[in-house]
Amino acid sequence: MIEKDARQQHAQFIETLEKGVRVLEVFRNGQTSIGLTELAHLCHMSKSAAQRFTHTWCELGYLAKDEHSRRYRLTHKALELGFLYLHTDPLISRALPALKLIRERCNLTVNLSVLSGHDIVYVMRIPGPNQTFAEMLPGRRMPAWSTSAGRVLLSALPDEQIRASLASVEPVPYTAHTELDRDVLFEQIVQARKQGYAFTRDQVLIGQLGLAAPIRNVHFQAVAAVNITAHSSNWSAEKMQQELVPLLMEVTQAVSVG
Amino acid sequence: MIEKDARQQHAQFIETLEKGVRVLEVFRNGQTSIGLTELAHLCHMSKSAAQRFTHTWCELGYLAKDEHSRRYRLTHKALELGFLYLHTDPLISRALPALKLIRERCNLTVNLSVLSGHDIVYVMRIPGPNQTFAEMLPGRRMPAWSTSAGRVLLSALPDEQIRASLASVEPVPYTAHTELDRDVLFEQIVQARKQGYAFTRDQVLIGQLGLAAPIRNVHFQAVAAVNITAHSSNWSAEKMQQELVPLLMEVTQAVSVG
Repeated sequence: MIEKDARQQHAQFIETLEKGVRVLEVFRNGQTSIGLTELAHLCHMSKSAAQRFTHTWCELGYLAKDEHSRRYRLTHKALELGFLYLHTDPLISRALPALKLIRERCNLTVNLSVLSGHDIVYVMRIPGPNQTFAEMLPGRRMPAWSTSAGRVLLSALPDEQIRASLASVEPVPYTAHTELDRDVLFEQIVQARKQGYAFTRDQVLIGQLGLAAPIRNVHFQAVAAVNITAHSSNWSAEKMQQELVPLLMEVTQAVSVG
Repeated sequence: MIEKDARQQHAQFIETLEKGVRVLEVFRNGQTSIGLTELAHLCHMSKSAAQRFTHTWCELGYLAKDEHSRRYRLTHKALELGFLYLHTDPLISRALPALKLIRERCNLTVNLSVLSGHDIVYVMRIPGPNQTFAEMLPGRRMPAWSTSAGRVLLSALPDEQIRASLASVEPVPYTAHTELDRDVLFEQIVQARKQGYAFTRDQVLIGQLGLAAPIRNVHFQAVAAVNITAHSSNWSAEKMQQELVPLLMEVTQAVSVG
């Protein structure tokens, strides 16, 4: 809130734009559709303001209004903005053949992700045969500490930044095995730095194994992570590390610009 | 332009929001990054206005400014909006297991797309082993007349609307075999309606075979299309129609709500 106030005080900042984007981002709450009253409430704006924003987004094609329920939902235009990012970011085009290669070699799910604050965002996903719905959608956000990709990206930061990031978040027990102790998480992240890859099991889903390595830019900065996920019913942790670490390291190093 | 003027005259329409979105949509031109002068020119706004919009989008995290080149590029936040659409649209969650099933059965690329004016937009893509970069990105827009998915979606419209759509577009020869004659295109679309599926070859890429069938809602309206693409070096047109039409029809009918 303090951060927002500072932003708003900047003469260049267009508050209308922020409010407008808030109306689209309200779908972060998971509803498939939203009525005007609820939307106004969630966006902290008057109903008449919400009316103007939804009208404009409908005109621009980003929201659609159901005639019967009078509720609003996001449209494919939101996804088109995502396409523009995927199409214009040089990293994506460079990494995608590598993701496909890994996918074809091991027949497992392969993801590309970037760090976004204390989270990672999956930017490309090549689904394996056993992936769940939520695991297939690009653009998904996950806490960095909880995933192999996030841990390997955090490991590229200086120690004090890793500790600061861990201090800023509240680890939640996705499973009974989710590591919640910040000191242990710190050690596992430092371990990932030493190894050059991160390995996780049972952290977000029971039985899920994750393996991740970074892609680096010319300055040797980790700009993205490639990760492979498998299920312990099909892959042992040992087999995954023995067979897939060399493949993952080879491919991510080939994509890195060094 | 006339349409936009009418929109702007509506008291509820927020012009600032439209201008702001235009700044993000400017990446439709294909540049990976844009400088301020060029952006102002492409968005038909003053440089100081462009400055305010880019500043705000950077603050909101949707644009990033390169310190050296002083150029702007889209960030993964644009993709997050796409995730919100994918996550909240009921059609996507219903159709995705079906796409995966087809993908695993035939090891070919499978797409889900929706009609958007005279175009289709690919909303989900499960890549096959031989797919090109551009073919892998969700959110991509293609002229409806040119693709099997677009033709099968157009075929669900009344004849006069199909003719009106074909009259509104200017078919371009992607390959030497691209069908450009609107009367022939109309006949092929009507043929797709009779068959329940559309089949294309060499329309956008030489050697590319496309097969598409619609998903219908409770009102029997075609709300999306599932299509499979193959390459003629691996699949004959005859084999594709014989082996994959039954699979595609079975799966799309199972996903349809009737």
